[in-house]
Amino acid sequence: MKRSELKPKIANAVITAAGYGTRMGFDKLFTPLGESGIPLLAVTLRAFENCALIRGVVVVTRSERIADTNAIRKAYGLSKITHILTGGETRSESVQTGLYALAADTDIAVIHDGARPLVTPKLIANVILDASVHGAAIAAIPVSDTVKHVMNGSVKRTVPRKTLYRAQTPQAFEPGLIKAALHSASENDTALTDDAEAAEILGFPVKITEGERANIKITYPEDLIFAEAYLERLGNAR
Amino acid sequence: MKRSELKPKIANAVITAAGYGTRMGFDKLFTPLGESGIPLLAVTLRAFENCALIRGVVVVTRSERIADTNAIRKAYGLSKITHILTGGETRSESVQTGLYALAADTDIAVIHDGARPLVTPKLIANVILDASVHGAAIAAIPVSDTVKHVMNGSVKRTVPRKTLYRAQTPQAFEPGLIKAALHSASENDTALTDDAEAAEILGFPVKITEGERANIKITYPEDLIFAEAYLERLGNAR
Repeated sequence: MKRSELKPKIANAVITAAGYGTRMGFDKLFTPLGESGIPLLAVTLRAFENCALIRGVVVVTRSERIADTNAIRKAYGLSKITHILTGGETRSESVQTGLYALAADTDIAVIHDGARPLVTPKLIANVILDASVHGAAIAAIPVSDTVKHVMNGSVKRTVPRKTLYRAQTPQAFEPGLIKAALHSASENDTALTDDAEAAEILGFPVKITEGERANIKITYPEDLIFAEAYLERLGNAR
Repeated sequence: MKRSELKPKIANAVITAAGYGTRMGFDKLFTPLGESGIPLLAVTLRAFENCALIRGVVVVTRSERIADTNAIRKAYGLSKITHILTGGETRSESVQTGLYALAADTDIAVIHDGARPLVTPKLIANVILDASVHGAAIAAIPVSDTVKHVMNGSVKRTVPRKTLYRAQTPQAFEPGLIKAALHSASENDTALTDDAEAAEILGFPVKITEGERANIKITYPEDLIFAEAYLERLGNAR
């Protein structure tokens, strides 16, 4: 079935905004992004507000940021936000908290890093539609760098990169699948680098949706420079 | 031996500037970078001009860009450039052309992509010093993304990323080693993703020098947005 032939399902999103931004030295999510003056998290949330396939949004943050997140909701008219919740000790716990707050009729649960503000409504929709067909889908882009396997500070070998992709978010799943998968990973103390990995461990095939180069996770100061410049270029087009 | 205890050797560089920038849609290397008005290649070459450990620079470009490159040399007072040469059909051929033009007393041959303008003199020096000790060294940074092994559009598995690095340039080598390694790769029709791989194939240990996050290769339009914003921030500090 083609994407265009699908009857859209009810998709709800969990946005994780509970990190500390330790590598940045300040809480990037609530910091105004460049000249726009718009907090990074608001830019992220706006993309979900503007995605026609998203019905509701649950934001998971730190307890001391609940009020700030609520202020963002009001200031930017983010009408799709249904819950603003306190996250857990780990990212995975925060995601699970969000998943259990989703409406019971959710067909597709979308998980997204609050720190990826340059995601577009189109990419969110594409991931949802792929997950509607396959049960699980993640945004990802091909690795374009030369990748080296390194041991003790020296190159062991160059890794063939043709089959390698860099995972992004959004990642979208049937809610029962991702809840079971994350629960199982927690039970087994499995360290996950992303949510899809929990589904992969259960042997569930996760579909790759072509991601967007600009959809970076804001982690290092250089990322912030890019995001600010990118948003300035887009201007009011966004 | 520590870097600081080394007697600096004679390091000469080959800068590759023979690509077509097909993914960009225009010849990025000779295009002014943002408001600075400085061509991208000139920014790259300035970093080598300002690295105290570099004695001479060979630029390899396309025949129709020889004159433009010469104009850049004059306009920006790039006194270290000793040769401006026409490259070959492939990147590897261009690098070899450059290597054979290096002075006979070269202790360390540094290879660098002209399309990485944000390299710093400090990084160039670090790679040279590591290569002086180990015979071969490349700038590289740890992979921070989640990496997926993908088959037929679905995730096969998440790749453990702890031992993975993204290779950059500069890459520096004893001249005899890299000439022999690239020659051998050519003879065997081995496709290389970077120059270090040729040395790896011969079983030569290549040292990892901690690279810089900003030292990206300008390949996609997004990369240009980042480079321009980054240089603007640095202003005349650079």
